[in-house]
Amino acid sequence: PRSYSITLLPGDGIGPEVVSVAKDILSFLILWSAPENLRSFACVSAGIEFCYNEMPMGGAAIDAVGVPLPEETLAAAKQSDAVLLGAIGGYKWDGNEKLLKPETGLLQLRAGLGVFANLRPATVWPQLVDSSTLKKEVAEGVDLIVIRELTGGIYFGEPRGFGTNDKGEDFGFNTEIYSTFEIDRIARVAFEVARKRQSKLCSVDKANVLEASMLWRRRVNEIASEYSDVQLSHMYVDNAAMQLIRDPRQFDTIVTNNIFGDILSDEASIITGSIGMLPSASISGSGPGLFEPIHGSAPDIAGQDKANPLATVLSAAMLLRYGLGEENAARRIEAAVIETLNKGFRTSDIHSSGMVLVGSKRMGEEVLKSV
Amino acid sequence: PRSYSITLLPGDGIGPEVVSVAKDILSFLILWSAPENLRSFACVSAGIEFCYNEMPMGGAAIDAVGVPLPEETLAAAKQSDAVLLGAIGGYKWDGNEKLLKPETGLLQLRAGLGVFANLRPATVWPQLVDSSTLKKEVAEGVDLIVIRELTGGIYFGEPRGFGTNDKGEDFGFNTEIYSTFEIDRIARVAFEVARKRQSKLCSVDKANVLEASMLWRRRVNEIASEYSDVQLSHMYVDNAAMQLIRDPRQFDTIVTNNIFGDILSDEASIITGSIGMLPSASISGSGPGLFEPIHGSAPDIAGQDKANPLATVLSAAMLLRYGLGEENAARRIEAAVIETLNKGFRTSDIHSSGMVLVGSKRMGEEVLKSV
Ligand SMILES: CC(C)[C@H](C(=O)O)[C@@H](O)C(=O)O
Ligand SMILES: CC(C)[C@H](C(=O)O)[C@@H](O)C(=O)O
Repeated sequence: PRSYSITLLPGDGIGPEVVSVAKDILSFLILWSAPENLRSFACVSAGIEFCYNEMPMGGAAIDAVGVPLPEETLAAAKQSDAVLLGAIGGYKWDGNEKLLKPETGLLQLRAGLGVFANLRPATVWPQLVDSSTLKKEVAEGVDLIVIRELTGGIYFGEPRGFGTNDKGEDFGFNTEIYSTFEIDRIARVAFEVARKRQSKLCSVDKANVLEASMLWRRRVNEIASEYSDVQLSHMYVDNAAMQLIRDPRQFDTIVTNNIFGDILSDEASIITGSIGMLPSASISGSGPGLFEPIHGSAPDIAGQDKANPLATVLSAAMLLRYGLGEENAARRIEAAVIETLNKGFRTSDIHSSGMVLVGSKRMGEEVLKSV
Repeated sequence: PRSYSITLLPGDGIGPEVVSVAKDILSFLILWSAPENLRSFACVSAGIEFCYNEMPMGGAAIDAVGVPLPEETLAAAKQSDAVLLGAIGGYKWDGNEKLLKPETGLLQLRAGLGVFANLRPATVWPQLVDSSTLKKEVAEGVDLIVIRELTGGIYFGEPRGFGTNDKGEDFGFNTEIYSTFEIDRIARVAFEVARKRQSKLCSVDKANVLEASMLWRRRVNEIASEYSDVQLSHMYVDNAAMQLIRDPRQFDTIVTNNIFGDILSDEASIITGSIGMLPSASISGSGPGLFEPIHGSAPDIAGQDKANPLATVLSAAMLLRYGLGEENAARRIEAAVIETLNKGFRTSDIHSSGMVLVGSKRMGEEVLKSV
């Protein structure tokens, strides 16, 4: 059997609930011919097999061992074949100093794994088009992906910090910086992804103002010569923020820097109306990828069996596809999610009249029935 | 009579057309008791009087004198009481090097005038709610204002430029930087504006990642103690980009930095569905303010009498209110615009069936009838 080790990072809030559902589905998936009782083992054998390693991360890790990304967690993640993360953060740690914030642990994990390319699909599910705040005729059929550079730019740029200027005023500062190496590799990922989709790539920058963006645009144009089958366009970030609302269907694949990607991918996800359905994949050239739902830790509904686990289930599908190359298994999960929606099962975030309201666990069980 | 000098910067594309309409309305306004023939004079007298000074700016200035902001233009603007700008830019100059881009002239003008506070209202006009791509029940009643810091942050931060790292890779970089002085003054403008509205201020930053944002949040909290009647909240920029689409009515006044404001104010404006209706004001503590429509130069429809002049007309109203303190005159223009919409006149960008389709000039004449 093909054997994979998966690091599970349940994290905070609803993280543990949704990761638990996704784990059950991954496990079941490989067991579709194996006996029920095997599902309780961490490592099982049948065609493909998974070995899980659950580690502390985020606020939970701060509470348990004092830091948001313990060394053992990063080491385990690096040694595994793929990492599935639930969600991190919560009011409890919001006031913490920077090094003791759950978010800092996430940034350290991204950097530690070198996952420079963040793939965030925003798909309007036909079954859920009414939950978008955009008009139906604008939202329906939206199927785009944002490729966000994830380990560079202003998130990690040095120098950064605080100081006092010659007028005696304090200041805070950060550095937005991109090298040709960083731009070229994210551009290549974006062109490859676009090629497997509608072959339309829109690169978003602020090249009319920022030098970092000017270089970005120049390099993306260079790399384009390797992908003459992909249609490339450029858009300023302010315009992109508008166009996503005015006519989101114009986009197929979007590539952009870390901070613009943070903003635009969240914007793109909300227009789908079902943020509880959206997965993400963060990949490096070589090592293990990081897969996580795009929603947050939702501390207000944590532990109440209310969270929509489908974003994490779909992240597990991305893990199979992009992390392990198990395309068939990925499709099997995605098809099961569609079937479950078609049967009318809905968690409260996507519920509408006439549909069957279910909790996280039940939703997971229903997906299992369709796998 | 109270006498004001106004610098007109028609700029590029549709700029000259829309500025011409706004100028006629300003002139007529002060002449409501004066004879028709006086309207052809640059300086006229009646109650209040305006003296106009039309100067080259943007692409037009590049073509005429070789730079996007000629010294004479900046000098004239500084000496006047207020500046009314049309729009700048166009395909023709897109490939120019940085110092010869129309956009650079605009940044130089903002810096030269020291207009650090950019006020951008996004109002859904009841007459035009259907033109939003958001559902009617989400868009109707939206009435928010984005206060964007305009002369600091990553737009102007030093150091910036290009370099080569020790691996021989080229890089481009910029500096996001804010001092307490800069944050305090924009925060005060925002609190003052919020106080005159619904007294709800939302400060948008990325304080979970960026040091510049951490200082921003700390200072905004400090300044809040001077405005205990205003309800202050903080939001991360990625979340704000979502919330503007999910539920825009939750916002009253938003304050944010230069680059986030660039993105969010464009996003806020498109949800109104009528970007041809939106004015902006950029003000400094002391000198003349800069007033301009938020739409661009739209080179594709330039010179065809198709542009919607109402954003510029409403910018002239903001000029009267924020630039000259002429509140009554400002209201008079705004009321005239509403009356004109109520009569059913629409330029093509906001036209819908049953309404009277008109060009720029005719729209201006109709507003004049109602002033
Ligand atoms: C939690 C935060 C640091 C993070 C980011 O800004 O990258 C989040 O917003 C995201 O998009 O994953
Ligand atoms: C033209 C450009 C430099 C400008 C900006 O980014 O500030 C524009 O987008 C705006 O918002 O006024």
